[in-house]
Amino acid sequence: MPKINGELLLADLRRIADFGRYQTGVHRPHLSPQDVESRHWLAGRMKEAGLEPVIDGVGTVLGKSAKSGPRILIGSHSDTQPRGGWLDGVMGVIYGLEVARALGEDPETAHLAVDVASWADEEGHWGQMTGSRSFVGMLSDADIDKARHRDEGTPMRDALKAAGLDKAPRVHFEEGRYRGYLEAHIEQGGLLEAGDKRIGIVTAIVGIYQFRLTFSGIQNHAGTTPMPIRKDAGAAMMKLYNEVMETFPGLAGPRSVWTVGKMSIEPGAPAIIPGKAEMVLQFRDADVAVLDRFQAALLEIVARHNKNGPCEVECLNLSRTMPTVMDGRFLDAIEESAVAHADGEHVRMPSGAGHDAQVIGLKMPAAMIFVPSIGGISHHFTENTEDADIVLGCQVFADAAAKILKGN
Amino acid sequence: MPKINGELLLADLRRIADFGRYQTGVHRPHLSPQDVESRHWLAGRMKEAGLEPVIDGVGTVLGKSAKSGPRILIGSHSDTQPRGGWLDGVMGVIYGLEVARALGEDPETAHLAVDVASWADEEGHWGQMTGSRSFVGMLSDADIDKARHRDEGTPMRDALKAAGLDKAPRVHFEEGRYRGYLEAHIEQGGLLEAGDKRIGIVTAIVGIYQFRLTFSGIQNHAGTTPMPIRKDAGAAMMKLYNEVMETFPGLAGPRSVWTVGKMSIEPGAPAIIPGKAEMVLQFRDADVAVLDRFQAALLEIVARHNKNGPCEVECLNLSRTMPTVMDGRFLDAIEESAVAHADGEHVRMPSGAGHDAQVIGLKMPAAMIFVPSIGGISHHFTENTEDADIVLGCQVFADAAAKILKGN
Repeated sequence: MPKINGELLLADLRRIADFGRYQTGVHRPHLSPQDVESRHWLAGRMKEAGLEPVIDGVGTVLGKSAKSGPRILIGSHSDTQPRGGWLDGVMGVIYGLEVARALGEDPETAHLAVDVASWADEEGHWGQMTGSRSFVGMLSDADIDKARHRDEGTPMRDALKAAGLDKAPRVHFEEGRYRGYLEAHIEQGGLLEAGDKRIGIVTAIVGIYQFRLTFSGIQNHAGTTPMPIRKDAGAAMMKLYNEVMETFPGLAGPRSVWTVGKMSIEPGAPAIIPGKAEMVLQFRDADVAVLDRFQAALLEIVARHNKNGPCEVECLNLSRTMPTVMDGRFLDAIEESAVAHADGEHVRMPSGAGHDAQVIGLKMPAAMIFVPSIGGISHHFTENTEDADIVLGCQVFADAAAKILKGN
Repeated sequence: MPKINGELLLADLRRIADFGRYQTGVHRPHLSPQDVESRHWLAGRMKEAGLEPVIDGVGTVLGKSAKSGPRILIGSHSDTQPRGGWLDGVMGVIYGLEVARALGEDPETAHLAVDVASWADEEGHWGQMTGSRSFVGMLSDADIDKARHRDEGTPMRDALKAAGLDKAPRVHFEEGRYRGYLEAHIEQGGLLEAGDKRIGIVTAIVGIYQFRLTFSGIQNHAGTTPMPIRKDAGAAMMKLYNEVMETFPGLAGPRSVWTVGKMSIEPGAPAIIPGKAEMVLQFRDADVAVLDRFQAALLEIVARHNKNGPCEVECLNLSRTMPTVMDGRFLDAIEESAVAHADGEHVRMPSGAGHDAQVIGLKMPAAMIFVPSIGGISHHFTENTEDADIVLGCQVFADAAAKILKGN
């Protein structure tokens, strides 16, 4: 079995964290100058590892192996959240690089081919998993024409031009090239840490249903409008929210989650009754039946509000991503490797967060591995993982890749 | 009894609406260029009416009568809400001007003295009822030094300098000068219209208690943080809000109102559990016992949340203005005048909105009169009142002023 070089792995991770360093984390949104620089550095490292790298028309870096043996694709993303962590998700990209190097150095595995990808824009500054969706054919040129930066509203085409990528072709999935896809990521939660585990074997990526609820009332003076005739959109929103919070636990699976992370009322002055209110509700589960139960309950609550008043509620589905089940044989391969290197410190678990693997997994068998997040923290510059866990995770990952490529 | 000139009254109201005209309303925030211009115009009209006007060190326009007879002070405010109505509250200022003119022209009332004020900043762009509070001695020079524009954050001192008022002295209440204070205003609600009434005789101005509730939880990933360990500040806020909405009706008086007009959650992204949430709750009643019951209930709910968790709630009192009861003899004088001009079309009612009369009323007997707001609309450029109601209200107001000054 191949032996990974832990020091080299950590050194590469620390080097790429220089691009956009922010306190103990990294600020490297997709197509920012520091992101583009890091992609060129990454392409250089791929080349040194014997791969043939390209940076494609949306910013994905794909390093292809020229070897003729069985092939696997390993990837994750090197863009980050604003002021995010140093490992989410570039750790999975550097794992891929190190696996390619380690397999290449071991005579037993030197013939096996590893392609490595850093998918563009996983963090969704311009769309949603732009790079992996482009790769599998879910992103049209028209989609790119329309894409705007989520905060700044600037066209993605302008950013691609500034990055020198406006003429670059896009890389696409080639039927039959790969045995499958592997991705490693930090857990972004506290379950591994809480359970004293070091390796998470991801069984499924949860589906996410997301709805925008808009409440229309009548804006009025908070002093002169009697309670019985009010149509307070804020009050209606908070009432509906509480009904959701009271109803969902009875319909939930053991790991279901539901969240209102965004809400606002208008005009937002203490002495004015809100005439409009809006919130975004999302729920996640690995079981589509649970998601559908939640959706039915939500629509029933909305209908009741619209029947009883006093405010009108509009419920708009923003997105529905289905749960993605990981490949069973790949999971077994990861588990065998985990037993070999960290027996008893591994656990099968679903991923509550979305990952490129759910997109690539539409085209080929896919699996994921998690390493622990200290304190469960992610999407924050204090995000971290113990060095020893980073190295262990990569070793398990490399063994699993070799096993899968060798076909056992 | 004096006879007011309805045409002149309406012409003056239409003329001053030119300063900052916005669609069918007016945008004239205190100390904006259009506000300062309108104050100079107003001072000119006061002079033409035989008064001696000054624009003082916070922007209040005070036109004093040189007559030696019994004196009354009539005022309201000529600054407006952003994109507000054309009558709120300049109607009361022009009423004062017309009453001064009408009393001066009638030989029976020509000896009676009417001072007219347009109080600075009633709409609170720089503070809270800045002009009337300055007049009664509730505003220090240090308060003005600290005052900043509520939206733009610019110092009030800079705006006063730009208006040429930085050297102007402030006008102050003179003990013994007045028999009392009268103010006229649009109702800003729909009770008069709904009851087919044309004159509201204000019995009291409600007190307002205002609290900021801040919820501290833990910001985390909405996909990877299990429900049982979440500390969701937004969920805590909405739960507490609903408890308030369920508890307050049982404690309320017949005209109590309570409102959350402002709320926010942080960081405000659909996939992030809010770590912080904040809302402003205010409640109003003419009876302080009701206000105190509401406050006690609120504090009990907050204490229960802090005991049970999972989020910490901080409850900060932002302001407590006490109900102001209007002068009984003044109310009788207004009612007699209303009976004479519009018998059966008048009603005694509290004011749910705050007015300068609650500040000036701390120093002398005070009373207020309301005219109907079409559709109950205010703080919006579509605010309006029938011309006939504007004229009727001023006639009743003038009669009442004469009655009060004559001492019956």
